[in-house]
Amino acid sequence: MIVTVTPNAALDVTYTVDGLVPDAVHRARDVRHRAGGKGVNVARVLHALGADVHAIATAGGPTGSALAAELGAAGLAAELVPIGGETRRTTTVLSAVDGSVTLFNEPGPAVTAMEWALLTERVRRRDPEVLVCAGSLPPGAPADGYARLIEGRKSVLDTSGPALLAGLAGRPAVVKPNAAELREVTGLDDPARAARELMRAGAGAVVVSLGADGLLAVTPAGTWRATPSGPLSGNATGAGDAVVAALALGLSRLEPWPEILRRAVALSGAAVLGPLAGDVDLAHYHRELAAVRVRPEQES
Amino acid sequence: MIVTVTPNAALDVTYTVDGLVPDAVHRARDVRHRAGGKGVNVARVLHALGADVHAIATAGGPTGSALAAELGAAGLAAELVPIGGETRRTTTVLSAVDGSVTLFNEPGPAVTAMEWALLTERVRRRDPEVLVCAGSLPPGAPADGYARLIEGRKSVLDTSGPALLAGLAGRPAVVKPNAAELREVTGLDDPARAARELMRAGAGAVVVSLGADGLLAVTPAGTWRATPSGPLSGNATGAGDAVVAALALGLSRLEPWPEILRRAVALSGAAVLGPLAGDVDLAHYHRELAAVRVRPEQES
Repeated sequence: MIVTVTPNAALDVTYTVDGLVPDAVHRARDVRHRAGGKGVNVARVLHALGADVHAIATAGGPTGSALAAELGAAGLAAELVPIGGETRRTTTVLSAVDGSVTLFNEPGPAVTAMEWALLTERVRRRDPEVLVCAGSLPPGAPADGYARLIEGRKSVLDTSGPALLAGLAGRPAVVKPNAAELREVTGLDDPARAARELMRAGAGAVVVSLGADGLLAVTPAGTWRATPSGPLSGNATGAGDAVVAALALGLSRLEPWPEILRRAVALSGAAVLGPLAGDVDLAHYHRELAAVRVRPEQES
Repeated sequence: MIVTVTPNAALDVTYTVDGLVPDAVHRARDVRHRAGGKGVNVARVLHALGADVHAIATAGGPTGSALAAELGAAGLAAELVPIGGETRRTTTVLSAVDGSVTLFNEPGPAVTAMEWALLTERVRRRDPEVLVCAGSLPPGAPADGYARLIEGRKSVLDTSGPALLAGLAGRPAVVKPNAAELREVTGLDDPARAARELMRAGAGAVVVSLGADGLLAVTPAGTWRATPSGPLSGNATGAGDAVVAALALGLSRLEPWPEILRRAVALSGAAVLGPLAGDVDLAHYHRELAAVRVRPEQES
């Protein structure tokens, strides 16, 4: 079983507007609510692929109840750790005119030491085959929170900043930063060099998401570039989460890297075409699986 | 007592961001929640002035509970009509960089005939000296809902489109459209001519808010222009509600028009300087009361 952990889960609210104009009043034509946070989105993608996945997330207050209700309605296997604070919201504004996607993220509520211990215990009891730790750490969580969850478990880590750096001590099998997150924690502009830095600090492998340019994977078995068949326009919000879903599935099936990367790029494109984060266009996914280009790179 | 009615009340959420950039991800530095909707804002301004005011609004679901809690904490005398639908949210994004104010308004939940009848009954029982009907009518409310509330009562009507046109049949003492709302319902570009159209259709007087240019009042006693002492920068969201508060207070005190308009312009500026809709900067209000210019206009 794959277990995803989302310690700073959110209720994602999506507004569709005619066009986003700063300093103006907008009427939301369409309002949608769904459970979110990176790990929840990863679980949603894995569920769509029929994988055996279980989501562990925090939830508190009325917004946490709304999150729980939506997870149930979506049929996702999930376990919610009750917290005293109120679950945060993220608001996504989709412009029907130009397709722009503008996000407003609330900071998350703090968690207590007891709540964090409960979350840790839930993960331990599930004894996951592959663990996915995704998203930011909430205020109050220990700085090395992800490292302690990951230690001794085959894991994918998708976070940024200090939580990413501290998480490396747990020796995750794969970390998945995007180019900006990688630059931020290493200070290096070259993604391949920066990835090797993270491997020296504890990452088993590093898969860097490069937006429309696809993925760069730096692993002990070699370095690969995986690129999509063509450009796509849509909502890129959940694209990184789809990559993480593919990485977790590949780890659980012990697939070779080129296979994993092919699926990751195809799923990422399928997420761009899905209307909301966590949605994937399965028809695109199956078509694109054959079209993704994966080639080994020379070590620089 | 002044009673304000807000049939499509909202929980106003305000995010402060560093700058609003379409197609980008924003972290809300500061998140504030308060009860809103035009009538609630009007009541908040009147409460700040020490007036005897009572707010009647709809509230439903967890968002309605949050609205009720905030009203209570603010010390506003209010009566909430429970509805089965969930109270809507409005999201205001304040840019700390350029001061822009961008709003996203959810459509309101529908009300049933029973819920509307309950709201009507609450107004009847309060027997207001002055009634303020403000904001949009929710789906499910009768098209002439405001007209029936207003009929036989000294009232201020602040709404737009079909709700405004239908509301005129109740013969409100004053209606307060802005220039765009006035143009929309009359098809006329000249505010004075358009105002006289609304008076022929039932309005006792028309006070048109012209943004930074102040107010134009067309009344049976004469026509006046009231202009602020100078330009202000701030959050103009609640400025119209402050004007309505001044109109209601003036009607309840039977003040002469120049006096009412002076207070309306001063309060409107005080609302622009207040951080959130419904807040007024009382120091500015008192200074500006002496500085507002009110002059009679020739009938055209």
